[in-house]
Amino acid sequence: DVGDAVAEGCSEACWEQSPVQCGEIDLSGAWLQLSSQHLSDFGGTPPPPCTDTEHPKILITGSRLGQLGVGLAKLLRRQFGKNNVILSDIRKPQTMSTIMVCPFIFSDILDSKNLREIVVNNNISWLIHYSAVLSAVGENNVALAKEVNITGLHNILDIATDHGLRVFVPSTIGAFGPSSPRDPTPELCVQRPRTIYGVSKVHAELMGEVRRRYTDTQRYQVTTTTGMGWISAASDYAVQIFHTAVKTGCFECNLRSDTLLPMMYIDDCLRATLEFMEAPADSLLSRTYNSAR
Amino acid sequence: DVGDAVAEGCSEACWEQSPVQCGEIDLSGAWLQLSSQHLSDFGGTPPPPCTDTEHPKILITGSRLGQLGVGLAKLLRRQFGKNNVILSDIRKPQTMSTIMVCPFIFSDILDSKNLREIVVNNNISWLIHYSAVLSAVGENNVALAKEVNITGLHNILDIATDHGLRVFVPSTIGAFGPSSPRDPTPELCVQRPRTIYGVSKVHAELMGEVRRRYTDTQRYQVTTTTGMGWISAASDYAVQIFHTAVKTGCFECNLRSDTLLPMMYIDDCLRATLEFMEAPADSLLSRTYNSAR
Repeated sequence: DVGDAVAEGCSEACWEQSPVQCGEIDLSGAWLQLSSQHLSDFGGTPPPPCTDTEHPKILITGSRLGQLGVGLAKLLRRQFGKNNVILSDIRKPQTMSTIMVCPFIFSDILDSKNLREIVVNNNISWLIHYSAVLSAVGENNVALAKEVNITGLHNILDIATDHGLRVFVPSTIGAFGPSSPRDPTPELCVQRPRTIYGVSKVHAELMGEVRRRYTDTQRYQVTTTTGMGWISAASDYAVQIFHTAVKTGCFECNLRSDTLLPMMYIDDCLRATLEFMEAPADSLLSRTYNSAR
Repeated sequence: DVGDAVAEGCSEACWEQSPVQCGEIDLSGAWLQLSSQHLSDFGGTPPPPCTDTEHPKILITGSRLGQLGVGLAKLLRRQFGKNNVILSDIRKPQTMSTIMVCPFIFSDILDSKNLREIVVNNNISWLIHYSAVLSAVGENNVALAKEVNITGLHNILDIATDHGLRVFVPSTIGAFGPSSPRDPTPELCVQRPRTIYGVSKVHAELMGEVRRRYTDTQRYQVTTTTGMGWISAASDYAVQIFHTAVKTGCFECNLRSDTLLPMMYIDDCLRATLEFMEAPADSLLSRTYNSAR
């Protein structure tokens, strides 16, 4: 939560004032939002890429809405340093607390040129692709879901291939369907999703598997992180159960005692994401994993 | 084969000269290629749609390259009449014999406006979508495969939804993969294809299943026709085996005697396609079938 970020140091919390060290060049964070056109208007040229090979430079798309993007950003920032992690979205973050975690910039996954510019200007080496139109919104706007979840994904994959990036794309429990086996759902099984969101995530999984053949040296990676309840209605319910139980000492749950909820502790999920991204390519038997198994 | 078409009547074979009867309006086949812009340039207006409810009006995309499109066109023409079946592609047919079967027009599945114009002007009610970038070409040009097989499919589905068309999209044996069970491959199973062509066909299957929820009354349909060998290298081999055996009385086959080739007799496949298209929506338990089972 946001408290962590604040507790970790107020000087780090206001990224606009903290300079980004990049080779010999001292850039204010605000530069991240300048396009090469802007630089050229002022007679400037884009800086050379950073040469720091110690840490990856990470771009996270779709970071505006919270838990996942901001949670992972905090973990990655602890691991690699705040200025090696950039949050991004097409809209401003919902709360100011988000930009206290890491630099936050505009990126539009449907604008390939914009994305490439960000990758080059910030010497990005890892791309965490959280942008997506989720289940309910997608069902109400199939055209938007196809555009963002499929065309947007293709843009991301093309750029990752061209620039040798490692990519992480979360899948969803919705990539399975009523015909998939449960308890536990195997790594490989029937996948007949019921929503356009689920269909687009199956497509992301298959694109990851198929493209690994072209991009093994670039270590292109996709994983499923099914079973994580923290973005569904069920998860809000679960959070309420735990919070109320801790606060008041008890919670009366209306579920049958043998009901299983498909949940995963968010810290386990974020750790799995990081370990997956750090794993050497030749240690990965697959490009898609069910992290909740 | 082409001989059939010629044998069926020379007066039918030259469609450019045979008028298309459509309500009170007598249109030459060449009109099919006039856009509404052209009509408007000459002070004309597009004709009202045909009112014939007896027979479907059928557009077949990707008809240029033969066996499938032309074979189905011949079957449909026998069933519904020659002028109710239109072959189409972005390139001229490979042989003149193709246009002797049915009307042949330009259609570009990446040009949504062009497609909609054809559907409206010809009062299309069934759309047989054969256009695709197949395995080998797709592996060499992934961008083209994504454009034609995914964006093109989305165009087709959008138009089918908007105009209440029945759609048939053939899938492929390549929509399975090494992890899919065999002998026989079940209707529903693991699908981890190895090519961008296979990935796009899985996507077509899933889009069919997911969109049936929106378009049940419009009877939108997709099927898999896996196991059909006549478009693969294996099929050329099989054809050679049979032809040589019939011609010379024997053929020395280098396959082990227990080798199974995934083949299906083309007439069975075409019949399955027609029966699937004619089936009432409520008799279909699924929108994807493995016709070869």
